Amino acid sequence: MRDFSTDHRWLSINTATVRRQLGVDWPLPQILDACAARGIRAVSPWRDQVAAAGLDATARQLRALGLELSGYCRGGMFTYSDGAGRQTARDDNRRALDEACTLGAGCLVLVVGGLPGALEGRTAHRDIAAAREQVSEGIAALLDDARSRGMPLAIEPLHPMYAADRACINTLAQSLDVCDALDPSRSGALGVAVDVYHVWWDPQLEAQIRRAGRERLLAFHVCDWLVPTTDLLNDRGMMGDGVIDLRRIRGWVEAQGYAGYSEVEVFSAAHWWQRAGGEVLDTCIDRHRRCL
Amino acid sequence: MRDFSTDHRWLSINTATVRRQLGVDWPLPQILDACAARGIRAVSPWRDQVAAAGLDATARQLRALGLELSGYCRGGMFTYSDGAGRQTARDDNRRALDEACTLGAGCLVLVVGGLPGALEGRTAHRDIAAAREQVSEGIAALLDDARSRGMPLAIEPLHPMYAADRACINTLAQSLDVCDALDPSRSGALGVAVDVYHVWWDPQLEAQIRRAGRERLLAFHVCDWLVPTTDLLNDRGMMGDGVIDLRRIRGWVEAQGYAGYSEVEVFSAAHWWQRAGGEVLDTCIDRHRRCL
Repeated sequence: MRDFSTDHRWLSINTATVRRQLGVDWPLPQILDACAARGIRAVSPWRDQVAAAGLDATARQLRALGLELSGYCRGGMFTYSDGAGRQTARDDNRRALDEACTLGAGCLVLVVGGLPGALEGRTAHRDIAAAREQVSEGIAALLDDARSRGMPLAIEPLHPMYAADRACINTLAQSLDVCDALDPSRSGALGVAVDVYHVWWDPQLEAQIRRAGRERLLAFHVCDWLVPTTDLLNDRGMMGDGVIDLRRIRGWVEAQGYAGYSEVEVFSAAHWWQRAGGEVLDTCIDRHRRCL
Repeated sequence: MRDFSTDHRWLSINTATVRRQLGVDWPLPQILDACAARGIRAVSPWRDQVAAAGLDATARQLRALGLELSGYCRGGMFTYSDGAGRQTARDDNRRALDEACTLGAGCLVLVVGGLPGALEGRTAHRDIAAAREQVSEGIAALLDDARSRGMPLAIEPLHPMYAADRACINTLAQSLDVCDALDPSRSGALGVAVDVYHVWWDPQLEAQIRRAGRERLLAFHVCDWLVPTTDLLNDRGMMGDGVIDLRRIRGWVEAQGYAGYSEVEVFSAAHWWQRAGGEVLDTCIDRHRRCL
């Protein structure tokens, strides 16, 4: 297992962690500069942040700073209630793929979507099995485009509390079932993003990480589960402030040969988004060294 | 599958659904009277409500009204950080068993506990596997007492969002693993309480209900998952107001021969606890007929 205690060369910052500090958007170019100034070598930006900064300008800045992308957030949202919705999702996912390629991302992270319309407050039906079918079909279609572009797709199982509105793939086992069905040869084109926040509770976690193996472990995201958790979406904890056994889970992932970044992704409306961005980044570095 | 549309003979009311209405505790004796007056045949009361009303008085009232108990809420909380905590849990669970017997409950529902101390804000450690071991040992010890009293124990897997602080058994599969280990003969002494709120998202749900079979299906709880859900604990929906495919899940349970009550358990601080109790009970009856 790698020693993270003396440097932070394997730290990546998911840029949603410092998206909006003290009520003001922190523009992506400034986030990237602040990361590079601290010796952070990788980030994972969100599409809306890249769009605001400009795709080509962002790509140039990343190259100039020598920053890698541990992933690109995000594709997915494959579920739909009509043919137009299906086509919209396909087109949007192809654009996300193209952007990921332009930015040189390590993978495109997929948040697969929940019951169609639920996130917009207009749930079309209650058939989660049907939604899951749409997700498998959507990933199958996107996988062809991803292979031709050489951009791996990372299915991110989300915590079951997001099953209705954000992602109906909710366990690592379920993600790997899709991987096995669509990429039985374990080509590396399709895998998973393991975010401890979503999977830490799973009694099958160690076994499923073993099942994933090196070829399917495309990203590793960290934060912490706070007790109590006061909001379903934006009350994630900084590593060390919660109950997740981070080092144990990293050990399982690395035992499979994962040697990539440990990406910090903290959505924290009441706490970390109320601090200066630089202070949050410094904290990420400190916790990465002490708690991972 | 039973037809619930024309009567509510298989409706049970978990009394937490009407625990505190419009800011005032609704005393259990009044709740029981209000249920009986509406032709409701079963309830599932909580221990604190029974304690406030008096155990023997409650037993007498239940008999006088002809009310059955679909379950008794609740035993469990098996995890501990020292020997004293272990003994306290054991003693308390034996008392819960005795109370369940006095009340003639169909089963004692077990909410097994999370990381020791987490619910009190003093999490003792992050080793959820160790907590799960304590739970298995605790159930094994209690099972002897339960068998001698003829009172079935129903393990209730809680939604993974409660893994840290309330229950580290989070799927039906995990519950059934414990049942298989401790009661391999499927004697009926140990089984599960299937609450749709906790398990609706599980891609294995149908298969695990089949695995449970009639002997292990001791209770069936209903409410609904709201989109959005604004609180992790007390924002459950009334049946029909959310996204759970209630009829499909009831069909799976009944296909195994389950012929017991459909117990309504809605914790709703902002909505249903802000209505008069009688109105809530009337709504439960209506929704039981239309949505189950």
